[in-house]
Amino acid sequence: MKKKTKGQLIVLSGPSGVGKSTVISELLSERKDIYFSVSFTTRSPRVGEEDGVNYNFVSRERFEAMIANNELLEYAQYVGNYYGTSLKLIQDHLEAGTDVLLDIEVQGAAKVRAKCPDAVFIFIVPPSFEELSRRLHARNTDGEEVIRGRLQKAREEYREIPNYDYLVVNDKVSEAAAEIIAILTAEGCRTKNRMNLIEGV
Amino acid sequence: MKKKTKGQLIVLSGPSGVGKSTVISELLSERKDIYFSVSFTTRSPRVGEEDGVNYNFVSRERFEAMIANNELLEYAQYVGNYYGTSLKLIQDHLEAGTDVLLDIEVQGAAKVRAKCPDAVFIFIVPPSFEELSRRLHARNTDGEEVIRGRLQKAREEYREIPNYDYLVVNDKVSEAAAEIIAILTAEGCRTKNRMNLIEGV
Repeated sequence: MKKKTKGQLIVLSGPSGVGKSTVISELLSERKDIYFSVSFTTRSPRVGEEDGVNYNFVSRERFEAMIANNELLEYAQYVGNYYGTSLKLIQDHLEAGTDVLLDIEVQGAAKVRAKCPDAVFIFIVPPSFEELSRRLHARNTDGEEVIRGRLQKAREEYREIPNYDYLVVNDKVSEAAAEIIAILTAEGCRTKNRMNLIEGV
Repeated sequence: MKKKTKGQLIVLSGPSGVGKSTVISELLSERKDIYFSVSFTTRSPRVGEEDGVNYNFVSRERFEAMIANNELLEYAQYVGNYYGTSLKLIQDHLEAGTDVLLDIEVQGAAKVRAKCPDAVFIFIVPPSFEELSRRLHARNTDGEEVIRGRLQKAREEYREIPNYDYLVVNDKVSEAAAEIIAILTAEGCRTKNRMNLIEGV
């Protein structure tokens, strides 16, 4: 039996407040072999966020230089800030056979879909919009107006859901993470990813 | 949140001797909610096989009456015997929201694929052809010539693998069953099967 040689690119999107970071932490603690691609952003760190862990926090000037130098797989503006993904970091890991996880919003995901049709696209939703509103308020980081903007943005993002392969409801974090792990296992079992196992028959 | 209403049809194929029955037993012990569609066959029961459990063993006359009455989703001849699947039993369970598992050979699977494109198709292979030969000999139920026929048939069946969605290697039974369970979980997370969860947003 041969091993598969290339890693799988996994793209995760979901509205602000859905609890993506928590689900991702749980997922990465179960699947330590996954490389989590930390996005670059020009927005300010929130309380508890660490540079190089949650995001690579960079200046607007640095980000615009990365755009000019074609260093990004995708980038987008969101609520007035840049968010983007380093192309080279991802390519290096995929080539080495490592699965790579991207946490990006729907505009960025659409760009990745165009460039990497073999990637797996997963959208995370809350159990309901009321619950999303509750979580955004509980986070206690945004004012009422920002929250209203995030909820409006979420409704727009929902229109992109049909473009995603999988839909995961984050009701309980452990269950959402378990579903994502099952999705990754299943994707690894796809015939097209495994034909090398039966060479020479 | 609404529940999905229709069950998932799962089609499992693999060469004789790969250990499908053992994998299926393990799978069904973990996922007791799945209805395993017991095929009808005209072949004789092997030692340890039970009527209504491994197969519904019927006479050639009865089987041909089922064909004439359109009672079968698919049927095929294999090594001189008929094998077929009851249409009504499957439909009833799918409509009731129960996932249904079919264990059929590649000819039958091709017919199901034409009629039920939404079904999930999984092919199980041994780690190698040498291992398949070893398992067929260890089963101690067939003579050398029958085994040679089964190995030749297996090689022909392998040509159908690209038509299957997933490929599972039965090296360790528990791992093969776990992969199939992950595949079923993932299929349940497919956006097209879950859009009802986000109605009314």
